[in-house]
Amino acid sequence: MSTATTNWKTKLHDIIYEADTRAGKLFDVILLMAIIASVVLVMLESIESFDQKFHDFLNISEWIITVLFSIEYIARIVTVKKPLKYITSFYGIIDLLSTIPKYISLIFGGIHALAALRALRLLRVFRILKLARYLGASQVLTSAIKASKAKISVFLFAVLILCIIFGTLMYLIEGAASGFTSIPVSVYWCIVTLTTVGFGDIAPVTPIGQFIAALIMILGYGIIAVPTGIVSAEYTSHSNKKQNPSKPNNELPLNSQSCENCLAENHRDHARHCYNCGEKLYE
Amino acid sequence: MSTATTNWKTKLHDIIYEADTRAGKLFDVILLMAIIASVVLVMLESIESFDQKFHDFLNISEWIITVLFSIEYIARIVTVKKPLKYITSFYGIIDLLSTIPKYISLIFGGIHALAALRALRLLRVFRILKLARYLGASQVLTSAIKASKAKISVFLFAVLILCIIFGTLMYLIEGAASGFTSIPVSVYWCIVTLTTVGFGDIAPVTPIGQFIAALIMILGYGIIAVPTGIVSAEYTSHSNKKQNPSKPNNELPLNSQSCENCLAENHRDHARHCYNCGEKLYE
Amino acid sequence: MSTATTNWKTKLHDIIYEADTRAGKLFDVILLMAIIASVVLVMLESIESFDQKFHDFLNISEWIITVLFSIEYIARIVTVKKPLKYITSFYGIIDLLSTIPKYISLIFGGIHALAALRALRLLRVFRILKLARYLGASQVLTSAIKASKAKISVFLFAVLILCIIFGTLMYLIEGAASGFTSIPVSVYWCIVTLTTVGFGDIAPVTPIGQFIAALIMILGYGIIAVPTGIVSAEYTSHSNKKQNPSKPNNELPLNSQSCENCLAENHRDHARHCYNCGEKLYE
Amino acid sequence: MSTATTNWKTKLHDIIYEADTRAGKLFDVILLMAIIASVVLVMLESIESFDQKFHDFLNISEWIITVLFSIEYIARIVTVKKPLKYITSFYGIIDLLSTIPKYISLIFGGIHALAALRALRLLRVFRILKLARYLGASQVLTSAIKASKAKISVFLFAVLILCIIFGTLMYLIEGAASGFTSIPVSVYWCIVTLTTVGFGDIAPVTPIGQFIAALIMILGYGIIAVPTGIVSAEYTSHSNKKQNPSKPNNELPLNSQSCENCLAENHRDHARHCYNCGEKLYE
Repeated sequence: MSTATTNWKTKLHDIIYEADTRAGKLFDVILLMAIIASVVLVMLESIESFDQKFHDFLNISEWIITVLFSIEYIARIVTVKKPLKYITSFYGIIDLLSTIPKYISLIFGGIHALAALRALRLLRVFRILKLARYLGASQVLTSAIKASKAKISVFLFAVLILCIIFGTLMYLIEGAASGFTSIPVSVYWCIVTLTTVGFGDIAPVTPIGQFIAALIMILGYGIIAVPTGIVSAEYTSHSNKKQNPSKPNNELPLNSQSCENCLAENHRDHARHCYNCGEKLYE
Repeated sequence: MSTATTNWKTKLHDIIYEADTRAGKLFDVILLMAIIASVVLVMLESIESFDQKFHDFLNISEWIITVLFSIEYIARIVTVKKPLKYITSFYGIIDLLSTIPKYISLIFGGIHALAALRALRLLRVFRILKLARYLGASQVLTSAIKASKAKISVFLFAVLILCIIFGTLMYLIEGAASGFTSIPVSVYWCIVTLTTVGFGDIAPVTPIGQFIAALIMILGYGIIAVPTGIVSAEYTSHSNKKQNPSKPNNELPLNSQSCENCLAENHRDHARHCYNCGEKLYE
Repeated sequence: MSTATTNWKTKLHDIIYEADTRAGKLFDVILLMAIIASVVLVMLESIESFDQKFHDFLNISEWIITVLFSIEYIARIVTVKKPLKYITSFYGIIDLLSTIPKYISLIFGGIHALAALRALRLLRVFRILKLARYLGASQVLTSAIKASKAKISVFLFAVLILCIIFGTLMYLIEGAASGFTSIPVSVYWCIVTLTTVGFGDIAPVTPIGQFIAALIMILGYGIIAVPTGIVSAEYTSHSNKKQNPSKPNNELPLNSQSCENCLAENHRDHARHCYNCGEKLYE
Repeated sequence: MSTATTNWKTKLHDIIYEADTRAGKLFDVILLMAIIASVVLVMLESIESFDQKFHDFLNISEWIITVLFSIEYIARIVTVKKPLKYITSFYGIIDLLSTIPKYISLIFGGIHALAALRALRLLRVFRILKLARYLGASQVLTSAIKASKAKISVFLFAVLILCIIFGTLMYLIEGAASGFTSIPVSVYWCIVTLTTVGFGDIAPVTPIGQFIAALIMILGYGIIAVPTGIVSAEYTSHSNKKQNPSKPNNELPLNSQSCENCLAENHRDHARHCYNCGEKLYE
């Protein structure tokens, strides 16, 4: 697609992808409210007594929101330079999944009880992920998490190994009488205990079992310090880098614009070209 | 109001707002004891057996405390230069709420069973917030929390999104039979689990449900590190700034005096003018 | 008491207060084993089935340990220069409490069922505090805790205020039917929830109650970061001070000797005079 | 054994101990999959309904895995220069324990119900420890844990002393009626509470008991900060050292090769001699 896009397309693009103009702000606010309303409706629908009383209200609201999201989806496809890239992107799939459930339920309208359809309808909860678009701001936070992800994975993997070994041990000691009916259940219990959740649906009753349970708890209480230490250190070093006078502009003022061509986001304010593909950006 | 306040007003102001004089200290101690006694009385009153036995004692004590707080409230209004500003301030509202419940219960004395009245009487527990006046010391602590508030909010928001998605998933998998009667309840369960509280009133029973529950727990165990890391880093940088030799007096000796004119607190010792409005301070 | 103490007193003092000699080491090991054995015995005695089977064994063992600790107590009094100071010190009281319960039970032998006597016998568990003598090593740890104690107290106090307010709110919303029978119970539940313990003996059942419970949990999950951040920062700064090249000997090699005169401990190795009172130390 | 080893031995050694060649990578992948499959099978076997349906499948799979691990074990012994050192090493014992249970069950085939045999079969879960070989990468992580191990031990020891004292107190206050049947059980409950696990199988019912329980929880909530602070500080200082420009090569590129002679691992890339015994390494 050339840069000579029609005028209305440029305007629509600005409304959808930029929050600087008045229309863009309004679009963002309406979308935000629609997302939250939609998720609240799905949640309320799942309450049987509520669903029976306000079935029609829920159905109509759902249709309004579905149509709204459909328009948004189409508008995004039309205004973006590379529609296929958008459609196959994370947000593209989320935006599609936000609309189709209701249409499918229309096709298979009579067979309401189908479990697959029920699951499909619940897919609408994933609309909450549309909110993630508005969470992208805290760069330092996400970069610190990304930097420590590998170490935390190793840590969680080690925790899992611990849980398998201790779970088997507890299965051997407590046995099915205390609720430790199989190794997977025992491992589940061990995870519940080590992470200090402690439901209490399964609890050791033999003295040796309680002794090992106490060991697991103290272990869990002690090693929670490890991931915390990792993120703390990582985050401190990231903050320090930010304050480093030799790299003064680590956190640039970004805007919510996204590149028409490659959909890259987080451009710095007043940037004239996409940092990713070099495409000229709207100003 | 001019600075030529009557002598007794100045004295009263000193007693209420300053802890340096003997009378001021005595006032503080009596107020502190009254607050704690009052909250303890409200708590004891809620124990039915206790209320039945010592009803008269509780009633009389409550009246004594109410009168005491009323006197305090009026004294504060009289001695402060801008009474309206005090009345509409946080502490002004708390001080008012500490006194009115008993008076209202006097007016509607006969209709004791009214739910609204019961709620009103419990309002007295908010008297505990009067204690917040004495907690203002740790500046570094609150400033560190304020600095990391935005990031922790983003984090908690992300946690909520996670809980909504996992909650819906668990509702789909476990269903009403295991206690996951609706999506809101499932989301509630998910929050209980992810925050490692784990009541156990609702617990997954199917293998897939337990597997996902284990995932949620390990997730919760791993990501608790994130807010901790944020506050740690923020707090470390705040402490470092404090120890920075180029800004040697970051933490000044403050006194408990508050400006007569604008109610600003935390003046540095021996300050002669309010840092906020320039009003002359008592010395 | 002059420095011309009899020879056996000097020897005994060395055995008890120093771990450098062979006899001193043996004394320490025997004492450690006696403490642990004693606490284990008290714990086993509380198991009814065990007590019935091995009553005589427990009784005799208890007598042996009591005599042992009595000898230790008397030896400490005799060898120390200022016995009164030792007797009124923390360890002096612990050492006394470790011996008297059995003697008192001898006097009131017949009236075994007395609740007071039962409590007295359980006092023996405090013998575990004798172990604290051997924990004194990690100076940095305790100094970091001491430094952040004030801030953590403020934090915990704020948590308590939160719990009282939320507890009253839950009492109002849930009421006695859900187990929130009084404000103290509700506050207890709130502490259980905010600290992420979550017993589940009391759990909210109304939707509003569960909503507020979720709020409390997320709050508890978020603010755990605060004390952790405080200790982290405090500890980091303490560690940094230790590594500071301008104060290279911050952590001196200490010995377990204690001053004969003033009972001060943690003298540096090869010190010839007590750092506290100037009394000459044994070498 | 001289350096003139036969050619096939060198090749086999490369396949087993080095992941650089194609054959070595394939060996690693097969081993990894075999370990995971094996542990999953042990877990599935423990589910009674699954075991009854797929008994033959489980038995045959187990034999295949056992034979595979036996071949691996023998191959490791043959290719290593000092077989005895390998056999008595941590991984040597794990590798042996991974194979023998099935053989022993063959010998005592008839007497399947034996509890000892059942325990032996569960030993196969320890095969998961074979995975630890692949976790060795994160040096900084393990060195930080090692550095703070002593301090965390002191901390956990102090926690244990607290639990014994509070446990005894709760036993005295609550008694057998509330489930605090003996001191060990009370101490177990105290550990459950202090570590914020909170099963709820035992919960205080008396007001004083609940008050002390609240104290324990707030204590547990407050002191979790201590180990976290320790690891954080330790980890930060380790990371700093790594970034220190004066010691630029603290983390060398290591390879997965292990010395033929002494089994030492973590050699730096392109090292020509074992850093431990001086033996020439394969290049």
